[in-house]
Amino acid sequence: MPELIPDRAVLLLSGGMDSTTLLWWMNAKGIPEIHTVAIDYGQRHKIELKASAHLSSIAGSHTHRVLQLDLAQIGGSPLTSPDLDVPAATDGQQIATVVPFRNTLFVTAAAAYAETQGISDLFISPVRDDYTAYRDCRREFYDALQAALSLGASQETDVRIHTPFVTWSKVDVVRAGLDLGVPYVETHTCYNGTRPACGVCDACAERLAAFVANGIPDPIDYVDQVQGKAPGG
Amino acid sequence: MPELIPDRAVLLLSGGMDSTTLLWWMNAKGIPEIHTVAIDYGQRHKIELKASAHLSSIAGSHTHRVLQLDLAQIGGSPLTSPDLDVPAATDGQQIATVVPFRNTLFVTAAAAYAETQGISDLFISPVRDDYTAYRDCRREFYDALQAALSLGASQETDVRIHTPFVTWSKVDVVRAGLDLGVPYVETHTCYNGTRPACGVCDACAERLAAFVANGIPDPIDYVDQVQGKAPGG
Repeated sequence: MPELIPDRAVLLLSGGMDSTTLLWWMNAKGIPEIHTVAIDYGQRHKIELKASAHLSSIAGSHTHRVLQLDLAQIGGSPLTSPDLDVPAATDGQQIATVVPFRNTLFVTAAAAYAETQGISDLFISPVRDDYTAYRDCRREFYDALQAALSLGASQETDVRIHTPFVTWSKVDVVRAGLDLGVPYVETHTCYNGTRPACGVCDACAERLAAFVANGIPDPIDYVDQVQGKAPGG
Repeated sequence: MPELIPDRAVLLLSGGMDSTTLLWWMNAKGIPEIHTVAIDYGQRHKIELKASAHLSSIAGSHTHRVLQLDLAQIGGSPLTSPDLDVPAATDGQQIATVVPFRNTLFVTAAAAYAETQGISDLFISPVRDDYTAYRDCRREFYDALQAALSLGASQETDVRIHTPFVTWSKVDVVRAGLDLGVPYVETHTCYNGTRPACGVCDACAERLAAFVANGIPDPIDYVDQVQGKAPGG
């Protein structure tokens, strides 16, 4: 697919490493009007919502909007159920953190908001490393969802779901983000929602590994670490 | 598509004429375990949620669940925005009642709930008459969404979205429902959410016309009527 740079776009910005890097990437591509959307999905912690709003502002986004989408009522994931434990990376249970159709609901809610703004271009930041646990991080899935949204839009529209990082590893994302000057110190990744970050959940482990592979210390603080930071980190 | 009658299914039950008829149709087909789901989407009135719960109970459904999905925050429709007027059928403005991607969000939320119950069969009741205003009432759309949901499910799954009434008119639905003994007096249709029903919104007008065409009076009360009831109604 040739790269298409729209004039107006909606970005799902969680405040994590990948979507924040995508925001800086979109700015670098010169998209003049970026509307960021964060989803308050009943996550146990609100740190990532604060990070998202703050990062949107730093990046000079056109608007920032929080949409409520209560996934906790659906259940099935420790990310929203206070009575389930977040598995550690060493447990090999990332699948247990899957909220059913989370990304489908997020993208569709963002598409609905975008439609009210007359916007058809959505950006979202799945990366290659997410495939194993999350089937809805594959491009094949987004192609199908894009087709469904185009058919289901109120008016005849080509809804475009842009996933420029879908073939990238998290190491690639951090490499690009460091070049783009992404303020990673402001991003939030930890599934446990703590600051300092837990350092042992899957999300922390992947983040730490991505920084180690780039030979740069992760600028945020950790309680503990599955993998040691590079010297000086 | 050959008719497939699953053992366990989730039905989106709004408490209106079409979904209630579908519930009775599913019972008549002998589906042993029917889980009904109603969506509290920020509608101005809660009458339809009460109707849905009551009808699910009358039908002897296995479970009934209300999912919150706040479409009012997305806006764009008088069905959720108190400051927009619901158009009368004579205004020719049914398009104004469209909440962007409403059915996509509803079906996906139901699919997420179904997945937590280990259910892959979803039933929803779009009818032929809905096409003009609502593009997400076409089978083409549900085929695309079904493909997206199958690709996006947590585990490899064939999600099936059943729309047995998609080629039916509302007249057909009422005809079938009268045969099946659907208690239409318990259903709610009016967009204005009043009881007696307003009788002049698009939803009331279509409902009244479907009863007139079947030569049977609609058993619910109306304040006013775009089209007169059959004698005795």
